[in-house]
Amino acid sequence: MPQLKAKSLEMRTPQVTKTAVLVIGGAEDKVHGREILRTFFGRAGASNGYITIIPSASREPAIIGGRYTRIFEEMGAKKVEILDIRERDQCESAETKASLEACSGVFLTGGDQLRLCGVLADTPAMEIIRQRVRAGQLTLAGTSAGAAVMGHHMIAGGGSGETPKRSLVDMATGLGFIPEVIVDQHFHNRNRMGRLISAIAAHPDRLGIGIDEDTCAMFERDGWLQAMGKGSVTIVDPTEVTHTNEPHVGASEPLTVHNLRLHILSHGDRFHLYQRTVLPAVHRISS
Amino acid sequence: MPQLKAKSLEMRTPQVTKTAVLVIGGAEDKVHGREILRTFFGRAGASNGYITIIPSASREPAIIGGRYTRIFEEMGAKKVEILDIRERDQCESAETKASLEACSGVFLTGGDQLRLCGVLADTPAMEIIRQRVRAGQLTLAGTSAGAAVMGHHMIAGGGSGETPKRSLVDMATGLGFIPEVIVDQHFHNRNRMGRLISAIAAHPDRLGIGIDEDTCAMFERDGWLQAMGKGSVTIVDPTEVTHTNEPHVGASEPLTVHNLRLHILSHGDRFHLYQRTVLPAVHRISS
Repeated sequence: MPQLKAKSLEMRTPQVTKTAVLVIGGAEDKVHGREILRTFFGRAGASNGYITIIPSASREPAIIGGRYTRIFEEMGAKKVEILDIRERDQCESAETKASLEACSGVFLTGGDQLRLCGVLADTPAMEIIRQRVRAGQLTLAGTSAGAAVMGHHMIAGGGSGETPKRSLVDMATGLGFIPEVIVDQHFHNRNRMGRLISAIAAHPDRLGIGIDEDTCAMFERDGWLQAMGKGSVTIVDPTEVTHTNEPHVGASEPLTVHNLRLHILSHGDRFHLYQRTVLPAVHRISS
Repeated sequence: MPQLKAKSLEMRTPQVTKTAVLVIGGAEDKVHGREILRTFFGRAGASNGYITIIPSASREPAIIGGRYTRIFEEMGAKKVEILDIRERDQCESAETKASLEACSGVFLTGGDQLRLCGVLADTPAMEIIRQRVRAGQLTLAGTSAGAAVMGHHMIAGGGSGETPKRSLVDMATGLGFIPEVIVDQHFHNRNRMGRLISAIAAHPDRLGIGIDEDTCAMFERDGWLQAMGKGSVTIVDPTEVTHTNEPHVGASEPLTVHNLRLHILSHGDRFHLYQRTVLPAVHRISS
């Protein structure tokens, strides 16, 4: 039975953990199945994992950091620590650098994305995370504000209930872990389609990714992202746009955008960031 | 100067009014420029126009009917009357038929689209309107509930702030003046993208048209529609959809829809209902 023998061998050989970037739409399940957090935990090394939580976006870093610490400890992580960076100079400390050089997972909590960028952008700490993510040494997750910072361009705020227009969305510069995308979170929950379309009209060289609550877009290093969780991941792809009046109209004038491509992905669906191809779910995502 | 002479002759020759169907997203300007209502007035014959107002969707038909009557009288219509159909048998009366056979414009007010369909659907009155619109003898306008009834499938109600899914939208049968479309109104104003996508996922042989407040999609008889007014007309075109999980998932499970085409049209932009082509505004719409 050669197949059975091969299978048996494979099961006894320790697998190298496949790193990923998990972009979570906020309000992920922290109590029941914890599917998204469990997937992050698995991709960050599972029981061999060393998870560093960065609650810098939050006004209550001790509370929110403590909550995630308990979750990952309950799951069985080898080490969990909170890196509560409040000032930019903490990003240069030996302690910060040591944690980020050694950990196998970094988790960015919710809060205010401008605060998170304000302390982390263009610091040595940030550079360590970026390089180790790129090298496949580190799994990164961000939820809510921690998700918003993933692109080069970042939605800092905005409205809903209005016609798409430039003034509907406030843009800033994000941390650029996945520079190709503009992320919006709590997406359908807070009716943010208009503001994501407005953001993409202004930056048609990017891809709009709207992520619902308790939902995740998990980016693999080969360019595929997978939708995971309770809601949907919305892709607004401007590659084929034939006409827009942006930036020739005033900030409060209605936008024209012709030939956007729109995908609504649910659990297990996949999309390729560079090929722009979309595949239906074939099986559940391994965690 | 042959061109000048031709121009001069043309100006003196009375033009045959080009009829149209105006689908208005609700809350159209009734006080200032009244651009949309003025366009309807022009297309319904202007000072030669005989306008019949049907306020059957409303709980306050006298008030709303009176308001539109004053507007069209102020504009200079030859005749304006209110046809307050409350019961289906009124649709067979000689008075109703006479008005609908003779008028040059019919205006359907806002209110409750189910009430409007309840009294009008499959009646002789409805058949007269339908035939005369098709024959180019009558300009039809509907605002809010009066817009919702235009398609064969009608959005009767639904929610926002949720992931697209079947249970997000209640469908019913509309009056079918433009059977190819599913209309949603107060569109960005009430954050209805999710419910329109849900409706289109269930009816991928139709075209989704989301119309903002004080905004109109004006359908010409040659298949072109033009956006007009303050907001945008959103087109959700499922022609190229490659995959959807509808109807194989439960009503409250998130929908998958791959390869929707999305157009955001603003004032003057055009879209062809059958060719599915989109053209940017070149000049303002003549009224």
